[in-house]
Amino acid sequence: MNLKLQWLRNKIASLDLQGIIISKPINIKYLTGLDAEGILLVTRKENIYITDGRYIEYVHSTLTLFDEIIVYDQKDVSTDDYENFFMFCENVGFEEHYVTYAKYKELVRKYKINNLVETDYIIEKQRMIKDEDEIKDIQKACEITDNCFEYLLSYIKPGMTEKQIANEIEEYYKQRTDGLSFDTIVASGENSSKPHAVPTDRKIQKEDIITIDMGCKVNGYCSDMTRTIFVGKVPDYIKPVYDLVLKNHLQTLKEYKEGANIRILSKLVLNDFKSHDYDMLHSLGHGVGLEVHEPPIINHKNEALLKENMVITSEPGIYIAGKFGVRIEDTVQITKSGSFSLTKSEKNYTVI
Amino acid sequence: MNLKLQWLRNKIASLDLQGIIISKPINIKYLTGLDAEGILLVTRKENIYITDGRYIEYVHSTLTLFDEIIVYDQKDVSTDDYENFFMFCENVGFEEHYVTYAKYKELVRKYKINNLVETDYIIEKQRMIKDEDEIKDIQKACEITDNCFEYLLSYIKPGMTEKQIANEIEEYYKQRTDGLSFDTIVASGENSSKPHAVPTDRKIQKEDIITIDMGCKVNGYCSDMTRTIFVGKVPDYIKPVYDLVLKNHLQTLKEYKEGANIRILSKLVLNDFKSHDYDMLHSLGHGVGLEVHEPPIINHKNEALLKENMVITSEPGIYIAGKFGVRIEDTVQITKSGSFSLTKSEKNYTVI
Repeated sequence: MNLKLQWLRNKIASLDLQGIIISKPINIKYLTGLDAEGILLVTRKENIYITDGRYIEYVHSTLTLFDEIIVYDQKDVSTDDYENFFMFCENVGFEEHYVTYAKYKELVRKYKINNLVETDYIIEKQRMIKDEDEIKDIQKACEITDNCFEYLLSYIKPGMTEKQIANEIEEYYKQRTDGLSFDTIVASGENSSKPHAVPTDRKIQKEDIITIDMGCKVNGYCSDMTRTIFVGKVPDYIKPVYDLVLKNHLQTLKEYKEGANIRILSKLVLNDFKSHDYDMLHSLGHGVGLEVHEPPIINHKNEALLKENMVITSEPGIYIAGKFGVRIEDTVQITKSGSFSLTKSEKNYTVI
Repeated sequence: MNLKLQWLRNKIASLDLQGIIISKPINIKYLTGLDAEGILLVTRKENIYITDGRYIEYVHSTLTLFDEIIVYDQKDVSTDDYENFFMFCENVGFEEHYVTYAKYKELVRKYKINNLVETDYIIEKQRMIKDEDEIKDIQKACEITDNCFEYLLSYIKPGMTEKQIANEIEEYYKQRTDGLSFDTIVASGENSSKPHAVPTDRKIQKEDIITIDMGCKVNGYCSDMTRTIFVGKVPDYIKPVYDLVLKNHLQTLKEYKEGANIRILSKLVLNDFKSHDYDMLHSLGHGVGLEVHEPPIINHKNEALLKENMVITSEPGIYIAGKFGVRIEDTVQITKSGSFSLTKSEKNYTVI
């Protein structure tokens, strides 16, 4: 049986569940590799994937015998079949954070389950720890992101619009990857003061600051990187802010390692910013994997500890409303003794 | 008070609800015009919108006094406030098809509501009937889609890839509208046999068939149009299929009017296709509005009747696996006595 399904079987057994219904597509992709519409049932004896006519061919050509997944076309599944899947199962898990209230009631009715049990992000928690293949895909996505960034440094010229640069990034990724992992941010001049700026028709000036937040997907796995760069020169009034952000970004990379307390290392950055009268408008980071934002969230409210082979970002940022902003972000792999950035683009003052 | 909120107040009163919680962003946009993250509460006396710091400025600048909506930043809302919003409300509605099971439990806990009641697509059902402003936006989106299609007829040349054409459509829309209403389909040659084809690197041939399914958004409202066109000439073996699809598309437009039975008019097309040994792989159509696919679904399982000022598609299609496919689709407004297409591009054989 595929290792991730084997893990899930052991996990639910430890929770006294005799079965589980997985509905969230990204969790099904994680467990099976399938990128389709359907539902995954782990029953007492079998792993079952129910899909429809549109995907049957794709599903059969993607799964191998090793997966040990029985595939059904939903039009061939009778009312009795549904009732039999979880027969003799006392407790069956479901994804309460994904399944709507209406769907929950439908599951109870359709599968005639005695006790449909909340499973509290069971799969998401496991997804936080990446295996070798997952890390390879993220590495590849990060490498292409670095290459794209290097290309941008020669591509970007005064007079271009933010939108034009964002489109070029999209085009670059489209030709080499599964596409964007999120809508690219290209925020120049005063627009850089908005953490979630959307590219506008503003033209790059001869002396300008540009924040670029970009990422792509390889085999479904994401990269996420931000750099703040300068056109012509680095204005003196920005340097102290840039230096402070970079110092905290690098400091965070140093602190990142198995066992590090997320709350404490977020607090360190917050406090340093506050001591300079700056605020932090967003989290210090987040997990990266099949989703570009996934657990763990790296902020001062999260008491969890980092673990080996988590892949997370370090992305401190300072935003001076209406004036400018600086954010520096890497996608980072956690190891037993430290961490290393999977995105490797230059972080010192970069002037184009 | 804004008319849509006034409608909602009357509607919930008629259902013996003393309040309702609206969580689905597109329904909030429909009721308030707001395109942000937040939750809309209609309580006994007030309309309340709770959002966060990121959107407060935008929300205040978008709403007018006329809307009669009180805006809160969620960080200023206390536990007591939440419990007070629906005080003395016996029954409060919620959107059971949008709210997750976990969120449902949170609502019950947070608002201390006696009876949280399912509302069965209450807003979606109202959204089916478009008012004058909504129709104007859809009209505009359809007009730009027609213009884009006309431009494509001179733009497309043999040797271009499907992706290149899809990108050109995206660029065209980006410059003139809020962007795509869905991922454009450009499916040429044998790819046209897949109803949901994704643009590939296949190059357009000197003699080729191309199905283009495209749409954009204006003020959030969508257009949706499909045309199947030919390069060089219309192959004789395709003509009978094209003629049959076009005949059924036009026949459907004729049948579309207030009071028409959706099931019956879908059956008419199905039967005509079957009498020629063809199957229909998808629905005959769907509602178009803030979402490009929204109720009503136009297929043989829907017993509902059409109503004035519904905006729906007519999109019969025939797909010969591995060979070719033909689909012709308009976005159509229903009137008391008939219907008229809001997309108006040529539907007879079009050869480029």
